Amino acid sequence: MYKDIKEKAYKANMMLYKLGIAPFTWGNASECDREKRVFAIKPSGVEYEALTPDMMVIVDFDGNKVEGEYNPSSDTATHAVLYSNFPDIGGVVHSHSINAVSFAQAGLSVPALGTTHADFCFGEVPCARELTKEEVNGEYEKSTGEVIVSHFRENSIDENAVPAVLVRSHGPFTWGKSAYEAAKNAGTLEIVCEMALKTLHLNSQIETIPSYLLEKHYMRKHGKNAYYGQGK
Amino acid sequence: MYKDIKEKAYKANMMLYKLGIAPFTWGNASECDREKRVFAIKPSGVEYEALTPDMMVIVDFDGNKVEGEYNPSSDTATHAVLYSNFPDIGGVVHSHSINAVSFAQAGLSVPALGTTHADFCFGEVPCARELTKEEVNGEYEKSTGEVIVSHFRENSIDENAVPAVLVRSHGPFTWGKSAYEAAKNAGTLEIVCEMALKTLHLNSQIETIPSYLLEKHYMRKHGKNAYYGQGK
Amino acid sequence: MYKDIKEKAYKANMMLYKLGIAPFTWGNASECDREKRVFAIKPSGVEYEALTPDMMVIVDFDGNKVEGEYNPSSDTATHAVLYSNFPDIGGVVHSHSINAVSFAQAGLSVPALGTTHADFCFGEVPCARELTKEEVNGEYEKSTGEVIVSHFRENSIDENAVPAVLVRSHGPFTWGKSAYEAAKNAGTLEIVCEMALKTLHLNSQIETIPSYLLEKHYMRKHGKNAYYGQGK
Amino acid sequence: MYKDIKEKAYKANMMLYKLGIAPFTWGNASECDREKRVFAIKPSGVEYEALTPDMMVIVDFDGNKVEGEYNPSSDTATHAVLYSNFPDIGGVVHSHSINAVSFAQAGLSVPALGTTHADFCFGEVPCARELTKEEVNGEYEKSTGEVIVSHFRENSIDENAVPAVLVRSHGPFTWGKSAYEAAKNAGTLEIVCEMALKTLHLNSQIETIPSYLLEKHYMRKHGKNAYYGQGK
Repeated sequence: MYKDIKEKAYKANMMLYKLGIAPFTWGNASECDREKRVFAIKPSGVEYEALTPDMMVIVDFDGNKVEGEYNPSSDTATHAVLYSNFPDIGGVVHSHSINAVSFAQAGLSVPALGTTHADFCFGEVPCARELTKEEVNGEYEKSTGEVIVSHFRENSIDENAVPAVLVRSHGPFTWGKSAYEAAKNAGTLEIVCEMALKTLHLNSQIETIPSYLLEKHYMRKHGKNAYYGQGK
Repeated sequence: MYKDIKEKAYKANMMLYKLGIAPFTWGNASECDREKRVFAIKPSGVEYEALTPDMMVIVDFDGNKVEGEYNPSSDTATHAVLYSNFPDIGGVVHSHSINAVSFAQAGLSVPALGTTHADFCFGEVPCARELTKEEVNGEYEKSTGEVIVSHFRENSIDENAVPAVLVRSHGPFTWGKSAYEAAKNAGTLEIVCEMALKTLHLNSQIETIPSYLLEKHYMRKHGKNAYYGQGK
Repeated sequence: MYKDIKEKAYKANMMLYKLGIAPFTWGNASECDREKRVFAIKPSGVEYEALTPDMMVIVDFDGNKVEGEYNPSSDTATHAVLYSNFPDIGGVVHSHSINAVSFAQAGLSVPALGTTHADFCFGEVPCARELTKEEVNGEYEKSTGEVIVSHFRENSIDENAVPAVLVRSHGPFTWGKSAYEAAKNAGTLEIVCEMALKTLHLNSQIETIPSYLLEKHYMRKHGKNAYYGQGK
Repeated sequence: MYKDIKEKAYKANMMLYKLGIAPFTWGNASECDREKRVFAIKPSGVEYEALTPDMMVIVDFDGNKVEGEYNPSSDTATHAVLYSNFPDIGGVVHSHSINAVSFAQAGLSVPALGTTHADFCFGEVPCARELTKEEVNGEYEKSTGEVIVSHFRENSIDENAVPAVLVRSHGPFTWGKSAYEAAKNAGTLEIVCEMALKTLHLNSQIETIPSYLLEKHYMRKHGKNAYYGQGK
């Protein structure tokens, strides 16, 4: 049961580890099964080197454990809210990568300053608002997801074109069609953030790239007529 | 005799090496046995690749060698003072990790700017005062420990909630329930310092996170009702 | 057929991967055969770990595929324009290395601030102009090559002495007598950019090195009477 | 003949490579035999992975090749001048490590900002003056050595207590009792420079450490009554 999504979640978690964006036990990846309305996620606080596919925990979209020996990641409720509200995504990742966290701690969105950014994200990576005391002391992880979803809905941001967000004072969440894509987006976001930080360092007055260049790069990789890669 | 603490001290020293936070022979870890009032510590100036568990030196809480072929770490007296004064700790680490040393050299405490910090430390990591000429020319390493302890006592900082300090112009000391925890805290501190440096770079006016967020994250990992990880 | 240039292009692509300057599938290297007026280039979007020499795609100098199962790199037309217009080059590389991209995103040429720079490039690494909306929406990759060539021709820059350029808002292209040299230049440019960024950080008023020092270092490695290395 | 110094020079060169402070073929280490007044040095432009001990070239203190199949490093004349003028040194290293080069390019000496610095160098690492056009166009590498020696003599700096210098616009030279020590000093200098750069970043007004702390740390490791390490 759930073998397929456990395997995929496991692989994406190990990818975070290999990319060096989840030091110690920080960070978690999940893969969902839309039909069964469940997802497989990393157990909480387990070291990556000790992880195996069957240790993944199965959780439903309300955040309740369905199967598994271990406690699921402490960020599980955030994943559940994202799956419930973003109907096209198949994987979610949370990481503590250094440069992305630095933007989150600085309370800054990541502006689209070049084509490396445009290749993965159609516009800035937004930094959502700080959670209130009530939200933090209530259902904290669930509220984290709700703040993300509200930010996207209120600002009419398409989550399929902007597969990443910074949670203020915390760090990035990314997603995609699969846990693999979500993990790749987490790795890409970290590189894009390092580039943005260094670009701002060299030229603090820099503006975002022209919209036609943003669109061109995003579309050549993700649009209907995409011509990057080997086709579908 | 002392086999258990030698093994644990050895493993923590190798962890510093693998984390890349103790270049060349810099840095040292110790594990103590509270009943026997001794600790096992790295021999001075020995390269990590040549280290074995039985080379660890056994020292008592007054800093006197109890057993071992080698000279103990030159920072041994500092470890001894910390064990004497912080009754709940079981391991101590000193490292020369680059970002933590940079804060120590700048004479700055590390502010709590995000949840990565809050997950390991309840409030800022303090930078203790510069030692006086008399202290440096007297029992230097012992005074280093005393300056740390005084800083915590005078400012009513709980060493169990703030498991790290920066010695001004020198570098970090960290501790924990075991040498393993102390080493993990040393690695975490380095990452947190890199994040803080980059956050200040992006936004020099940034303020520390709200106290309710600091408390939430610290408590969900270390409090009575902690729900991070797999339980006790 | 084309076995030799496929092998060379393959090795240069793997060199980008090993140097860490082409994260994920970003970046591509090609080697040309001037007699046959074709070049071998990386297939688009294929992961480096899955790459083999026979997957390289053969393309002519007009950018048309001549042989190969896969789609060539999406940047193929840029390579073609460079081979057509720079008659002495035998290899081209495009990378997304972090520090070089940061200069490109900042819209800044890389000034010659030291002998590490002078050893590989006779003067600044220029940042070419932003492409227009028409160019981006037309034959984008071909225009990218044309903007590079125009920049060199209009500013009378010798492409054999300056084997690198930054495409504004995008990143670096480098070249050389072979794909190997182009890849080595890409790796060198990244290091030189990190040095330049840190130099400007330490001293924002710094000026470029004296022309006699630039000439000396460039010539001792690349001039008629070069005495670096083991001779021809 | 010369087998011992060839082996030692080889090992120090490989140490530069492993420390990551000599990218590509940049950087060179030598070990001298004071009785025979010769030194063994890396051949010019040979990749580290292809290096063997017997490829080391034997050169006398006037910079003339005494034995060896290969051309010696292009920086050989600088090594020769240092051996001639600094009577106690047994090894010399030149590297292109990124942070040390950045200070050299910025034209700045590296101030003693902490004990990591004091542990290896008694005071700032000086940045020597830019070479003149005549020096560069004359015997460039020999003049480089002479500018270093003059800087130490004119400023009464003891080369045995300050085992490193920055050549303006170029990069670091380090030395020690052996090639191994010189290589270790090159690695240490790079770390110390990264710490200094980040310290200045955090606090641009920072002053050097008190002289009593500088002296304490230097002496506990290098003085008559040194107590760091396992004794002689």
